[in-house]
Amino acid sequence: MLTVTLNAALDVTYQISTLSPGDTHRVHHVHTRPGGKGVNVADVLTQLGHPVTATGFAGPELTTRLPGFVPITGQSRRTVTIVEQTGTGATLFTEPGPVISPGEWQALLDRFDQLAAHARVVVLSGSLPPGLPADTYAQLITRSPAPVILDTDGDPLRHGLTARPALIKPNLDELTRLLGREPDLPADCHTLGVPVAATLGAGGALLATPDGTWRARPPGPVPGNPTGAGDAFTAALARGLACHQPWPTVLADAVALSAAAVRSPAAGSFDPAAYQEFTTAVTVEES
Amino acid sequence: MLTVTLNAALDVTYQISTLSPGDTHRVHHVHTRPGGKGVNVADVLTQLGHPVTATGFAGPELTTRLPGFVPITGQSRRTVTIVEQTGTGATLFTEPGPVISPGEWQALLDRFDQLAAHARVVVLSGSLPPGLPADTYAQLITRSPAPVILDTDGDPLRHGLTARPALIKPNLDELTRLLGREPDLPADCHTLGVPVAATLGAGGALLATPDGTWRARPPGPVPGNPTGAGDAFTAALARGLACHQPWPTVLADAVALSAAAVRSPAAGSFDPAAYQEFTTAVTVEES
Repeated sequence: MLTVTLNAALDVTYQISTLSPGDTHRVHHVHTRPGGKGVNVADVLTQLGHPVTATGFAGPELTTRLPGFVPITGQSRRTVTIVEQTGTGATLFTEPGPVISPGEWQALLDRFDQLAAHARVVVLSGSLPPGLPADTYAQLITRSPAPVILDTDGDPLRHGLTARPALIKPNLDELTRLLGREPDLPADCHTLGVPVAATLGAGGALLATPDGTWRARPPGPVPGNPTGAGDAFTAALARGLACHQPWPTVLADAVALSAAAVRSPAAGSFDPAAYQEFTTAVTVEES
Repeated sequence: MLTVTLNAALDVTYQISTLSPGDTHRVHHVHTRPGGKGVNVADVLTQLGHPVTATGFAGPELTTRLPGFVPITGQSRRTVTIVEQTGTGATLFTEPGPVISPGEWQALLDRFDQLAAHARVVVLSGSLPPGLPADTYAQLITRSPAPVILDTDGDPLRHGLTARPALIKPNLDELTRLLGREPDLPADCHTLGVPVAATLGAGGALLATPDGTWRARPPGPVPGNPTGAGDAFTAALARGLACHQPWPTVLADAVALSAAAVRSPAAGSFDPAAYQEFTTAVTVEES
């Protein structure tokens, strides 16, 4: 398994008392971890015990913590998540990202060709750093000898579709932007030309393929931290494709793992007990 | 003039559309500058054309941008300011700061002794990084051959007072914490044993000295960015002390420069036209 994170991040979490717009807040605790959607996917696969290699671009702050990545001169972006002691939600700020030089891009292509040659599934995740063309993911999909799962948004998703990935994983907002209107589900998924695993937040997920369409639902509302839940969902899709599991099994597993990730405080990990519990509690129906 | 910033920061500003707690925000623009109160004071003095040296501790991210500082192994803190395109206020998050080793502290003392010997006024500004004792500023005041302006809060201010700085510059919140109750002004200032220049936000400022007590007011409400206004105020106090200006002149100048800093979008600078305008418009009366 290979995950590619072109816009990796240093995820910074600030714990504060209460967020009050317009005020000054002393940060009680600062936590940092390498992040970005593909890094999270790889971390979840590692926790599942599934062999995975992660690559992408890493600025100076990230090179030692992301050894499989292509080092770049620019600073990798930071994401800052504000977590309140007395509040419930997390407030997130995401920087745009570094400028990639032509030499750095060529180094990434070389690394990609080398790693994708041995991968059973390739996962391309997240936004593109500024300056990389919108067809960047399309280029990687075309080069990949392995089936590709694409999880991105906007123009990179639109262009990526033309290169026919094995599966895309939009959420409702991303589907809405892709279609330019509220999606009509599952009908709209079948117009995109590739299998679609659409996450529907608390409503579970929908999988539309030429072989059939399925809907999976979690047993009920899952309280916790939804950051990274989509990446756990993608990790399960990747494992399912790599292991040639049937589509409804893949979908149910992805919804269970995603809900177990909500139960875990940090992105890139899941609650193993909750995963086991949800595995038997998720319902799947053909639609 | 020497300014000391023991807890210097990389000030990061995020421009976003609208702050919505619990949501994810794409940052449109990231701006960074070396900050911390003493750095801001030095930047204002430089803009005034007044010779100034700045020192303190600088982590790896800041060493090249703060050449007069003692390099440390720990990361200098970051402050993150969220500025909204459609909002008015700035929302600020301040990290606690790095741990200082005994060797780094000794290097700072050596640098301080060397620089303070040639300074007409020393300005000690801002919080202490975690681990430095609360009497850190008191130690520096005792060592300083030049008069010291102390601008800090809480225990470092309480301890600093015992070493009798030439002047302290609390705001109303800091005075309240120092006294343990709402201040009775100007009476309470005279109980502190040293001259007090108290900033009163939009209400101007109060200067209580053994030679007299004065109140200065800006001409009216000044819209803009109040971050750094207190540091411009301190810069004017430092210049006034260095140039042996009379107290009421120093106070009026500090209120004018502080209001001109509100008119400037960034901390560490002021609007020169506004400064000129406010210089004649600020009123001072003995109280």
